[in-house]
Amino acid sequence: MWADLLPVGRDARTGGYRRFAWNAADLECRAWFREQAERRGLVYEADRNGNQWAWYAGPGAAAAAPRPRVSPARARPPVVTGSHLDSVPDGGAFDGPLGVISSFAAFDLLIERGAEFRRPLAIVNFGDEEGARFGVACVGSRLAAGVLTPEQARALKDGDGVCLPDAMAAAGYDPERIGADPELLDRIGCFVELHVEQGRKLVDVDAAVGVASAIWPHGRWRFDFRGEANHAGTTRLEDRRDPMLTYATTVLAARKKARLAGAVATFGKVAVEPNGTNAIASLVRGWLDSRAPEEVVLDEVVAAIAKAAADRAEIDGTEVDVVRESYTPIVEFAGGLRDRIAKNLGGAPVLPTGAGHDAGILSATLPTAMVFVRNPTGVSHSPAESAEMPDCLAGVEALADVLADLLVDDSAGRGGTGHDNDRKEATT
Amino acid sequence: MWADLLPVGRDARTGGYRRFAWNAADLECRAWFREQAERRGLVYEADRNGNQWAWYAGPGAAAAAPRPRVSPARARPPVVTGSHLDSVPDGGAFDGPLGVISSFAAFDLLIERGAEFRRPLAIVNFGDEEGARFGVACVGSRLAAGVLTPEQARALKDGDGVCLPDAMAAAGYDPERIGADPELLDRIGCFVELHVEQGRKLVDVDAAVGVASAIWPHGRWRFDFRGEANHAGTTRLEDRRDPMLTYATTVLAARKKARLAGAVATFGKVAVEPNGTNAIASLVRGWLDSRAPEEVVLDEVVAAIAKAAADRAEIDGTEVDVVRESYTPIVEFAGGLRDRIAKNLGGAPVLPTGAGHDAGILSATLPTAMVFVRNPTGVSHSPAESAEMPDCLAGVEALADVLADLLVDDSAGRGGTGHDNDRKEATT
Repeated sequence: MWADLLPVGRDARTGGYRRFAWNAADLECRAWFREQAERRGLVYEADRNGNQWAWYAGPGAAAAAPRPRVSPARARPPVVTGSHLDSVPDGGAFDGPLGVISSFAAFDLLIERGAEFRRPLAIVNFGDEEGARFGVACVGSRLAAGVLTPEQARALKDGDGVCLPDAMAAAGYDPERIGADPELLDRIGCFVELHVEQGRKLVDVDAAVGVASAIWPHGRWRFDFRGEANHAGTTRLEDRRDPMLTYATTVLAARKKARLAGAVATFGKVAVEPNGTNAIASLVRGWLDSRAPEEVVLDEVVAAIAKAAADRAEIDGTEVDVVRESYTPIVEFAGGLRDRIAKNLGGAPVLPTGAGHDAGILSATLPTAMVFVRNPTGVSHSPAESAEMPDCLAGVEALADVLADLLVDDSAGRGGTGHDNDRKEATT
Repeated sequence: MWADLLPVGRDARTGGYRRFAWNAADLECRAWFREQAERRGLVYEADRNGNQWAWYAGPGAAAAAPRPRVSPARARPPVVTGSHLDSVPDGGAFDGPLGVISSFAAFDLLIERGAEFRRPLAIVNFGDEEGARFGVACVGSRLAAGVLTPEQARALKDGDGVCLPDAMAAAGYDPERIGADPELLDRIGCFVELHVEQGRKLVDVDAAVGVASAIWPHGRWRFDFRGEANHAGTTRLEDRRDPMLTYATTVLAARKKARLAGAVATFGKVAVEPNGTNAIASLVRGWLDSRAPEEVVLDEVVAAIAKAAADRAEIDGTEVDVVRESYTPIVEFAGGLRDRIAKNLGGAPVLPTGAGHDAGILSATLPTAMVFVRNPTGVSHSPAESAEMPDCLAGVEALADVLADLLVDDSAGRGGTGHDNDRKEATT
């Protein structure tokens, strides 16, 4: 499976991937997903938000209709696994695809083992997880869960001014249908997402796989620094209103404030106008990504950075506007499901993460869990991201074990004893 | 004339111009130039480097061949005036076009006055003066003067990876012919460029026009800050190699070093890879524009900025490469020509400038001079750049007076008494 997917959307110069929502590489990944589903006799379906699903209702039921009807209603809520196939700019090969490929491989293993399917199984590819094109992460799952409204999504534009509905339509999807999809999500029993670890905790504890405890609260803020364009050669320093200076000060302040608070804060994306060598900038737009163990800490860090920016703007004669583009509160994964999985995996280590995921978005709507696969360098969102083949295979084994356990228990996840509580817990 | 040119290449959102070498707006400006030449019966010619010329050999000689043959050879070296039509990103309406339009208007005035043409007159539009597309300023005049080699020019690429020869060829020009053009330049007697002032000295002394004394030495340096791309949410601060921090420190250092030295230093253009909100940058590329009253000061300022960058890179675990992309030594305009023009204009103020110009490039090859028109705000390289209509008309009158004086003196400029010395002076 890797062989088909590896070259898609890879930049020859950087070696990184450029699979952005609805671009040509993304569509090729989507075609690959559909082919994998149909090759296994799974029932393929794209939902109203462009997320892709491959349904299996059990042996002999492969040819059933999409979203297999079960009776009595919700008596056998499906188990869902999967991840995403899109990438950040010049991203690595594993973030996202490892979860989707491992899901198909785990399904193959279950069939090979003759596993018992008392509940339907689905493999999902959530669209636009990274938000690389339109600036909002997890658009597919956010729309389905109703935490991103169709109006908000329709207003999103990429760097070339193309809006999300036009990008969807150009790819052959109907943008009129996007929006909350309770009919789909309410039926799902639980969602387990396998993902390459984005850190080195599993290296530290010498384990091939682990289970997620929580996702740090995190968000994106756009800082617009406005000054006055002027000639870089002829304008006296004292006559300048140069927003690049305000931006530079804010970048350094962000690192310092995060360090003092035990958080992280990063300016990794910048856009400058007019962006000419011999012109003082009129606008520097910098995007802040910040995350912390607790929401109160995150809020304090961002407020301190915004204050440092405003203070320096007074000196530079510039103006600063801060716009919160996205915010995800802390996610505590469903405790019952998490503990069951860790136990099933022989006491796998349980660890938090600073990265957002579709499983985090959906944790407010249904019981979700995550399985991490060791990343020797800890590097992520880079071509240097990696995972060893034995660890990947251990991940597939682990996911198959987890799914096998959930598939034979009608009540695991939503509807099972103690699991309704999981849902409430996850919304805090 | 303004009415035709004003809308060309203007961005509706910013109100600034985007006339970059060989782009559609530039070609429209070039067509406008040719039309203005032909409407006046001037002989139009594009030279081997894509600079445009409109030749006039005197009354009754309008239909002569391009580069009118004069005999004895060089006995009547032509007087040349003009400027450029391209712009910086989101540039103003006056930087460049004011000089070209004023040249045509001054020619009309000379004809109306029945001025005597003892020497040919040419109006020129130098190509790619701003260097907005390929990063090197004054490409047209540098190529003609042989200070930019064809090999260097052919290696230039724009932000989309399009190389200069391909851009020229796409515009219908033959890139094989670019290179030094002594046959053309050696014949020219002198070049006078009218330009909007890029500062407020004429405001301070309350004069509509002035004459240039010198151009500050100036250059462009590309700083490549290299680190390691990684996940902005999951990478511990102590594990990062974030080049954005090194860049930010260097931006602030540049301002400080320039202030201490009485120079200017500006980072106005940045490119980031991968430029994703949730990815630590792997590469931040920043372009430094720096200028100073003397070359030794300029060299010291840039060395100090490079050292500040290298020092911070050690702390950040990043690497810095500094590449000098262009460098223009101090230009002292031809003294005899300058004094003659100032005297002709009734003792117009003589002032230095921090901006580079084609007249500066050519000053090493032939006697050149510049006439400045008052700019009420001093703002330049911005849509806010301006000049009052009475000042623009005063500029046309002044240019016509200067040309009329030069056209009746066979020896003014190169070949005249004392003027060969001008040329040597200009090369220092």
